[in-house]
Amino acid sequence: MFELLKTDTDTKARLGRLHTAHGVIETPIFMPVGTQGTVKTMDPRELREAGAQIILGNTYHLCVRPGMEIMQHAGGLHKFMSWPGPILTDSGGYQVFSLAKIRKMKPHGVEFRSHLDGTPFFLGPKEAMEIQRILGSDIAMVLDECPPHDGTQKAVRDAVERTIRWAALCREQPRAPGQLVFGIIQGAGHAHMREHCAKALAAMNFDGYAIGGVSVGESEPEMMRAVEITEPHMPPHLARYAMGLGTPAQLVELVARGVDMFDCVLPTRIARNGAAFTRNGTVNIKAAYCKKDLGPIEEGCDCFACKNFSRAYLRHLFNVEEILALRMLSVHNVHCYLKLMQDVRQHIAQGTFGAFRQEFAARYVPSKNLLCYRKQAPAE
Amino acid sequence: MFELLKTDTDTKARLGRLHTAHGVIETPIFMPVGTQGTVKTMDPRELREAGAQIILGNTYHLCVRPGMEIMQHAGGLHKFMSWPGPILTDSGGYQVFSLAKIRKMKPHGVEFRSHLDGTPFFLGPKEAMEIQRILGSDIAMVLDECPPHDGTQKAVRDAVERTIRWAALCREQPRAPGQLVFGIIQGAGHAHMREHCAKALAAMNFDGYAIGGVSVGESEPEMMRAVEITEPHMPPHLARYAMGLGTPAQLVELVARGVDMFDCVLPTRIARNGAAFTRNGTVNIKAAYCKKDLGPIEEGCDCFACKNFSRAYLRHLFNVEEILALRMLSVHNVHCYLKLMQDVRQHIAQGTFGAFRQEFAARYVPSKNLLCYRKQAPAE
Repeated sequence: MFELLKTDTDTKARLGRLHTAHGVIETPIFMPVGTQGTVKTMDPRELREAGAQIILGNTYHLCVRPGMEIMQHAGGLHKFMSWPGPILTDSGGYQVFSLAKIRKMKPHGVEFRSHLDGTPFFLGPKEAMEIQRILGSDIAMVLDECPPHDGTQKAVRDAVERTIRWAALCREQPRAPGQLVFGIIQGAGHAHMREHCAKALAAMNFDGYAIGGVSVGESEPEMMRAVEITEPHMPPHLARYAMGLGTPAQLVELVARGVDMFDCVLPTRIARNGAAFTRNGTVNIKAAYCKKDLGPIEEGCDCFACKNFSRAYLRHLFNVEEILALRMLSVHNVHCYLKLMQDVRQHIAQGTFGAFRQEFAARYVPSKNLLCYRKQAPAE
Repeated sequence: MFELLKTDTDTKARLGRLHTAHGVIETPIFMPVGTQGTVKTMDPRELREAGAQIILGNTYHLCVRPGMEIMQHAGGLHKFMSWPGPILTDSGGYQVFSLAKIRKMKPHGVEFRSHLDGTPFFLGPKEAMEIQRILGSDIAMVLDECPPHDGTQKAVRDAVERTIRWAALCREQPRAPGQLVFGIIQGAGHAHMREHCAKALAAMNFDGYAIGGVSVGESEPEMMRAVEITEPHMPPHLARYAMGLGTPAQLVELVARGVDMFDCVLPTRIARNGAAFTRNGTVNIKAAYCKKDLGPIEEGCDCFACKNFSRAYLRHLFNVEEILALRMLSVHNVHCYLKLMQDVRQHIAQGTFGAFRQEFAARYVPSKNLLCYRKQAPAE
């Protein structure tokens, strides 16, 4: 199901094609996050126009609301949210561990209560796969346990062993038609545990592999290192997904380290705070320097927002708290991420990715406060 | 500039065509309200798709934020908000009287302080027209004084006389290229004052006439009567606009009373509260009966929301407080109003409006709490 079309000569960047039940995905790719059955503020047409090939759905959130009875009645997530393209669902594990009010580990899963109203749920490998079967996602993720990035060696080892056991169980569960299942490699910053986990999962022949336990509060160098120590142990002929990452600059660097797939709430979240991504870094649309700026968010950008509206207008909309402001910055930011991935693919294909990476890094001014986003706001 | 194409034989309904600097408007028509330079939650493409021919901008709000310096710098409201079609602007008078914190009547206008931060402004006939010239609207409204619907005879008479004096001054001010100016008839529920005001304004040869002082807290029969006592004194060869009205059922009744143009915040406001207009009345999308309803908001509706999403999905979006919910109900409600006007026009053209009106009234279940909307939330 994954075609590795080309590997870059200068870096570990890869050009690929992933075949799913709802369409083909060109990699490297960014997946906009549709936590609660909608990519925040955007409709499916806007997602397609922004270049989205695949989006994410969150098992935990959809399980809490609207619940699986309605998801089943609706015929799955694609129909429910009117998105005909590929969908990847997480297993719900990350949110259970970060959000749920009361958790109790049991041999076959986790007992927890919803963060909203305390409704009791049980999530084990079997349940996680059954939920994802009902959601009908194109790519399901195994239920894993994500240890803290600064956890003790024992805590990390226990999480890795549980992740391996659960992965084996997930592997055996019934799937939706054509549904792919990806394994998740844990191990925090410990090279031998990452290797152990990657090899154990590789032996289970999943359809793709993810690097978990990143974007959980660690520093950027620690995050890069976690990817670097994991990647060599991942099957090269399958798609590789780094979970919950990252900024545009990080994505380019992670592509150079051999990662094919990304998801992140950053583009839509910072949009709602008035920040826009550009190739030069972020722009604060609410800032005084945008007050009379009749130019678009980003010069040369051909997204719907940049084709129609000026910074001055969008700043006004933020000032008067109009929803169109949140929408248009979301449209731009998602487009910005997807266009970046398109450029990355083109440069890998042309053999110019190394130069593009250098040029991009030289031009892009990173925002210091944009790293640990999952920790800052775990509700998304 | 106004072509009266046909007058209904059974009722006073009229079919017309109003030529403006930014395009032709087929009447009877509903004008979605873009208070702060955006029809709440919607973008210009969605407005066009919903069938919008002309939208409203609010002088008071745009004057307070972003302010006229930016509006002038942007080259007017059309360019600023990226709406290439006709725009009607009110004079700001209604909001000055209902919203501004401190008001002081002066011979040539009103001194007031912004409801937001107390910034001092002065609005007289000259200022109101100058602001609308800068906004560049296709139809500007004169500055009027809207007396309370239950004001004393003296209060109403004073307001009518001031409205007439100000109208004469407005008539003489410079305009934007091709800008039409409409007079506004006041007089509350007093037939002789309505007649006096209408005749005085008719003598000034405005490009169209509005009935003001409706939708200000009066009952529905009082509102209908205010229109009925005013309409016979309005020039029949010019467009007639009833300000701030109304529900779908009211619009049909007002068309039957000879009104051509309407504006109202209802479709977008109740959308944000989870209510959708249909030909049978309103539907509360948040209600339990929508929980598993996989049908559209309104059967047979071809708006973007109904073509793509189910009631069950939209209910879920409201439950989890997703912006797409507010958007899609706004799209549907605005489409519903505009489609209704399209049907009204077709029935007038075919000579079947009388029957359509009866059928509509029999089918439509009005919501009692939907009348005094301008009073309930004057901020819009």
